[in-house]
Amino acid sequence: MRELELVAEIRRGFGVRRGAQVALGIGDDCAILRPKRGHEVLVTTDFSLEGKHFLLDTHPPEAVGHRCLARGLSDLAAMGAEPVAAFLSLALPGEMLATAKGRAWVRRFLAGMRGLGERYEVTLAGGDIAESESGVLADIMLVGSAPVGTSLRRSGGRAGDSLYVTGALGGAAAELRAMLARPSGGRRVVKTEGHPQMFPEPRLAVGMALRRRGLATACMDLSDGLSTDLAHLCAESGVGAEVEAGLVPVHSLAGLEDALHGGEDYELLFAARAGVKMPRQIAGVAVTRIGRLVRGSGLVLVRDGKKRVLKAGGWEHFKAVGSC
Amino acid sequence: MRELELVAEIRRGFGVRRGAQVALGIGDDCAILRPKRGHEVLVTTDFSLEGKHFLLDTHPPEAVGHRCLARGLSDLAAMGAEPVAAFLSLALPGEMLATAKGRAWVRRFLAGMRGLGERYEVTLAGGDIAESESGVLADIMLVGSAPVGTSLRRSGGRAGDSLYVTGALGGAAAELRAMLARPSGGRRVVKTEGHPQMFPEPRLAVGMALRRRGLATACMDLSDGLSTDLAHLCAESGVGAEVEAGLVPVHSLAGLEDALHGGEDYELLFAARAGVKMPRQIAGVAVTRIGRLVRGSGLVLVRDGKKRVLKAGGWEHFKAVGSC
Repeated sequence: MRELELVAEIRRGFGVRRGAQVALGIGDDCAILRPKRGHEVLVTTDFSLEGKHFLLDTHPPEAVGHRCLARGLSDLAAMGAEPVAAFLSLALPGEMLATAKGRAWVRRFLAGMRGLGERYEVTLAGGDIAESESGVLADIMLVGSAPVGTSLRRSGGRAGDSLYVTGALGGAAAELRAMLARPSGGRRVVKTEGHPQMFPEPRLAVGMALRRRGLATACMDLSDGLSTDLAHLCAESGVGAEVEAGLVPVHSLAGLEDALHGGEDYELLFAARAGVKMPRQIAGVAVTRIGRLVRGSGLVLVRDGKKRVLKAGGWEHFKAVGSC
Repeated sequence: MRELELVAEIRRGFGVRRGAQVALGIGDDCAILRPKRGHEVLVTTDFSLEGKHFLLDTHPPEAVGHRCLARGLSDLAAMGAEPVAAFLSLALPGEMLATAKGRAWVRRFLAGMRGLGERYEVTLAGGDIAESESGVLADIMLVGSAPVGTSLRRSGGRAGDSLYVTGALGGAAAELRAMLARPSGGRRVVKTEGHPQMFPEPRLAVGMALRRRGLATACMDLSDGLSTDLAHLCAESGVGAEVEAGLVPVHSLAGLEDALHGGEDYELLFAARAGVKMPRQIAGVAVTRIGRLVRGSGLVLVRDGKKRVLKAGGWEHFKAVGSC
């Protein structure tokens, strides 16, 4: 399989849907997108580097492909955008395309990406292919759209707003811990549900509902861990925050520390006016109040009635677990 | 310099211009772009990998940054698009940010990118930063725009069309050969002109003029070498081509083989109806007729009245010169 064959395989696998906002996909110098009239265009890029964002002997290839696309989709979800197209820059070691085992890995990686892309009707409209000197290097770029001026931002929170998260937190860090203890050797995992580390679910429907219904004053996704990401939201909004430990929804696989500091949950963190009647579920996903925004700039954790500083303990990929 | 400091430095250096089509730049989950009304959106991504697309001991850091952005801008030029914003995903070895020498490299890389970006009023609106396991890995993504339905494509050429190129060919391959014979050790090169390998000039003004004036039936940029790229244009247009060796504009540093097969010139290759009166210069850049499109699918080189097959001899990065 040479580079051109790989491009042809990708092109076959990710056809442009009828009615999509993609006028021209893979095969020219650029792709051509035609977002809806009156919409603004949202763009995000995210690396998925072997040894840094995933481990070849621990993450099944489908999970690597799924997570690569999920990282970008989650950024669109955080702004309340609908996906328009994805672009994949993929560098592979030369020996990977030269062996049947390597080609199987690439096909399973693409299948994982395609599976998630089909569920959210995302077209892969372009990208780049190269040979890497070491390891698998992927960079995903997502383009989305939303009516002009309505995209959710990190910067709109005010003191007094309530603070919410979707789903349950800490599952991704907890599942990774279990995976590192028992490397899968790339075994197939058919079911994507119930695997918060391998198959995180981007909260696109929740983000779009928050935007349409005007429920959130600020929003972002939880990629680096609650304590780290909350600090970013607070910095952009010019406020501090109080989180009540007893309110934080902890994933069934995880403990409170995972939920506070574990990363890669790809749930949404958002603020809303204190008076807003917030549904308990949006688009089938639990929504939980975990605290509030306050004046100042500090983050505080309230536990058993005692307040302590909530330090940003965000997960720096695999450093925390010392695997590389 | 930690990752956040690097992001802050990039954010300071690439401010969003007033009146730009960028409503929100670096700092949120996504950037927000607002292309002009009635425009379609063009997107391209291009890797710049150490050892593959550039050599750390051969290319000065300013040249690496310039070339990284130029690759993307050239793809926009090929479609006749105007640039809207750039996104940079950049992975650096950990030790690079830990040493003064490494930090100087990164600053000079960014300065080279910024210099080209300022000339074409391109805002760096986002991206990603990561630590790499080996070498400098950059992925540039460019977003541009053009009035709906007017973007130039590879696929519009017809048998009988004349074939043109901008500028002179082969200079990038020839200068690389000279650089490899005498590695610069990263010395500063102040003047960007006259360095086709280090500082290629994306032909944005030419591409936009071809689009506005309806001069071209098909267009692409010359990144992999004339013989390779012409085969792509012909395949997408469903035609063959005849190139007259004596008409090919050869760069003053180069020979005919460089001009036919050398890569990375980033000039434009385009087709136009035979009857069109083509200017000798567009936007100050020479435009030269080099042959024509013909029925069938083969590429032919006419030299001293004799025809021979023009094989795709496109330059596969540094493989041809055996440096890595």
